[in-house]
Amino acid sequence: MMGFLLIFNGGFMLISALVSFVNHEAATRGILISGLLSIAIGGISQFATKGFKKEIKKREGYLVVALGWIVMSFSGALPYYITENIPSFTDAFFETMSGYTTTGASILNDIESLPKGLLLWRSTTHWIGGMGIIVMAIAILPLLGIGGMQMFAAEAPGPSTDKLHPRITDTAKRLWVLYFSLTLIETFLLKLAGMNFFDAINHAMSTLSTGGFSTKNASIAYWNDQPLIQYIIIVFMFIAGTNFVLSYYIAKGKFKKAFQDEEFKVYLIGVFMLTAISTYVIYNFANVSKLPTDIQLIAHPMIYGELESSFRHALFQVLAVITTTGFVSADFTIWSPFLTVMFFVMMFSGASAGSTAGGVKIVRHIIMIKNGFLEFKRTIHPNAIIPVRYNDKPVTRGIVFNIMAFFILYLVVFVFGSLVFSAMGIDFITSLGAAASSLGNVGPAFGDLSPVNNYDSLPPAGKWWSSFLMLLGRLELFTVLIIFTPAFWKNI
Amino acid sequence: MMGFLLIFNGGFMLISALVSFVNHEAATRGILISGLLSIAIGGISQFATKGFKKEIKKREGYLVVALGWIVMSFSGALPYYITENIPSFTDAFFETMSGYTTTGASILNDIESLPKGLLLWRSTTHWIGGMGIIVMAIAILPLLGIGGMQMFAAEAPGPSTDKLHPRITDTAKRLWVLYFSLTLIETFLLKLAGMNFFDAINHAMSTLSTGGFSTKNASIAYWNDQPLIQYIIIVFMFIAGTNFVLSYYIAKGKFKKAFQDEEFKVYLIGVFMLTAISTYVIYNFANVSKLPTDIQLIAHPMIYGELESSFRHALFQVLAVITTTGFVSADFTIWSPFLTVMFFVMMFSGASAGSTAGGVKIVRHIIMIKNGFLEFKRTIHPNAIIPVRYNDKPVTRGIVFNIMAFFILYLVVFVFGSLVFSAMGIDFITSLGAAASSLGNVGPAFGDLSPVNNYDSLPPAGKWWSSFLMLLGRLELFTVLIIFTPAFWKNI
Ligand SMILES: [K+]
Ligand SMILES: [K+]
Repeated sequence: MMGFLLIFNGGFMLISALVSFVNHEAATRGILISGLLSIAIGGISQFATKGFKKEIKKREGYLVVALGWIVMSFSGALPYYITENIPSFTDAFFETMSGYTTTGASILNDIESLPKGLLLWRSTTHWIGGMGIIVMAIAILPLLGIGGMQMFAAEAPGPSTDKLHPRITDTAKRLWVLYFSLTLIETFLLKLAGMNFFDAINHAMSTLSTGGFSTKNASIAYWNDQPLIQYIIIVFMFIAGTNFVLSYYIAKGKFKKAFQDEEFKVYLIGVFMLTAISTYVIYNFANVSKLPTDIQLIAHPMIYGELESSFRHALFQVLAVITTTGFVSADFTIWSPFLTVMFFVMMFSGASAGSTAGGVKIVRHIIMIKNGFLEFKRTIHPNAIIPVRYNDKPVTRGIVFNIMAFFILYLVVFVFGSLVFSAMGIDFITSLGAAASSLGNVGPAFGDLSPVNNYDSLPPAGKWWSSFLMLLGRLELFTVLIIFTPAFWKNI
Repeated sequence: MMGFLLIFNGGFMLISALVSFVNHEAATRGILISGLLSIAIGGISQFATKGFKKEIKKREGYLVVALGWIVMSFSGALPYYITENIPSFTDAFFETMSGYTTTGASILNDIESLPKGLLLWRSTTHWIGGMGIIVMAIAILPLLGIGGMQMFAAEAPGPSTDKLHPRITDTAKRLWVLYFSLTLIETFLLKLAGMNFFDAINHAMSTLSTGGFSTKNASIAYWNDQPLIQYIIIVFMFIAGTNFVLSYYIAKGKFKKAFQDEEFKVYLIGVFMLTAISTYVIYNFANVSKLPTDIQLIAHPMIYGELESSFRHALFQVLAVITTTGFVSADFTIWSPFLTVMFFVMMFSGASAGSTAGGVKIVRHIIMIKNGFLEFKRTIHPNAIIPVRYNDKPVTRGIVFNIMAFFILYLVVFVFGSLVFSAMGIDFITSLGAAASSLGNVGPAFGDLSPVNNYDSLPPAGKWWSSFLMLLGRLELFTVLIIFTPAFWKNI
């Protein structure tokens, strides 16, 4: 299993090496070596474990998922490290973990100086991560019963069967075709709108995986003079934050299924309302054209006037944070104190379950809020049984319980995460932001890690801690933390 | 009922008026008028409602509790307002609500310039608030079934009977005697340690109610050269944060009952560990004698050396925040980034249920954390029934459910509270601090509301919002919020 992942990884590295070769870059050799090394190690371990049973039990499932992500990150760090474009291994590992977990936090101070082969490899880590998340979110987590996601166990497309293996494979294949197609479409549209092909494919991979790595130092603010490019990315960020199962049904022409879905409705209305609020505040209280940041200095010609510009940046940043993509069109931390707090809170939202987005996910918030209101009713009528209803079906008390426990655990990890950052001497807002952003796989944070800065200012321990939080958040906490509990190792 | 509260309130005002008179203060007349006015209005409404039934149903219970606190605050604001010592009614109401909810946040820039009669009245609002909280926490909340507190329904001392009225009255009387005795003992000890009698009684009332109003501008830092006084206050803050039912049993000689109590053990160990961590950080990384704050300038002779001083301030501030008393011996927001985050998190802790402390309360955290660990076990063994155990008894799933819902609601109110503050243009850390501190009834917060500042810098809307959050937090959210739900008003 691990062997297969490494061979797969190495294969993608060879593509990057080819791109590097075509561009006559010195990095070609290093990337090639990394690719061959990954394939070799993968092949050996595949061969060595050939005789073992292929069936994976639930308990082993946790280990495979968590270890798989870590092994991938070590292998994926090789191209940066061997080519010496990122000379510190801590940094190379951070950049790779940030890639696979689709966090998009970077330690690079000058992204544009990287060879094209490595830039492509960087976006590829996002894209591979996104593929992993789709399988995990739709096929694995519901079956492992993590954080209430068992409610979706029966929803995924594919043959109905009780056997784990064929069902996962079939569902994954269908959704990967969709993921692949959407990436191609976005690449094509971005190219059409005026981006060059290389930037287009990199940004398409970064968008659909809700990753957020860009090929430009200024991220998407580089195209502040080309609103069309930004609107295309906006549309695809929204799609990336939509449950892929729903997108699959929409692609099959079953629109009704999508617009009857409560999570989708809340997602749509939520983005609309948050954008309206942000637009209002930016337009009236923040002068977008005159804010003193690097990003603003690049290019901000206000092509369609200040209102359109305010609206576009509001919509862009709301989606970038809600979907946890983390692309930057403007620095949301300097707009106003109110928006700073609002965007901070949004880092805990996350988009739809079954999307590539990180964070808590909208469906969990819906169920917790509904349950909160029902608690009042239950307090008044203590003997009545009043279940939460979701998509017109009652949700079992057990699932609501799982979801609340997940959320509380998420907050505990966030608090503990912030404490560790602050113990490194990092200030209040930066510590809280770093923990929220790493755990939610968002990318940009606040203070010293605001959208105009990067994660290079963190001390090495902070980079490892941030990497760990990214992994925790990405694997929905339980998958990783459960390995540290004594109960996991008992009676194997 | 309301009438009785007003008469009671007016009676206490007359005592303050008497103190004012003895000190030949101009405020005497104003306080006297306020007292007589309260008694008159109380008497009239008592007389007007004389014919009505005395039995209170559950639903009316919520209204009486919430309205009672508000009516008291309007009446209690009169002495400040009529004597024109606080000329703005917003400010006078804020100071009074802060008093009754035992928050202790103040808008006064020069506390020491207030007439003694008003200073006494200010501490008296704390003390009366504390009496209200004891009845509420021990007798009313468990019966109303709020936030899991029904666990304690059978614990309170008093005759076992199913009838609400006699049981509440008897329990309240026993605990009030304890509360009154403890206040007298602390006054006596503080006097003995060198405080004058007036300061001693005021601080005793502020301590046992976990209020935090001081008669000095520098709060308890005024006595930084008299460690004994600070240690006495430390001991009584600890007692005020202990479940009064446990203290009652200890006073009766039943020590075993206390040391078998899980919440008490966690409280004791928690304070110990947090103090150890804080002492370590302060001693090694913050030079207590050289910090550039007003508080430090007053008097900090390091009588027993720097280690003792670090330990004392650590212990004092840990207890001040955990018990939500909010007294200040030093500015905990400038020690180090780590302690800033730690103290911020501690604002959500709260001390024991059944004490006068605000916040979430330790017992709720215990049950949520235990449940969190069990969730892992349940994920591995999905068919096993694994209940949370507290004090060697299994806790029903319903109560765990209530507690988690309470905690999530608490966080929702905190987030919404922070957003409203930030919308007034208040910066990130100050907004979050103001919401956490108001809701937890702590008092001092962070940033512009740090221990060396006060709440006068808030805009008027911010003062009303803070007052509302104090009330919400004090009445454990549900009691107030339930009144705003449609279900409450249906089928009356
Ligand atoms: K991201
Ligand atoms: K207080």
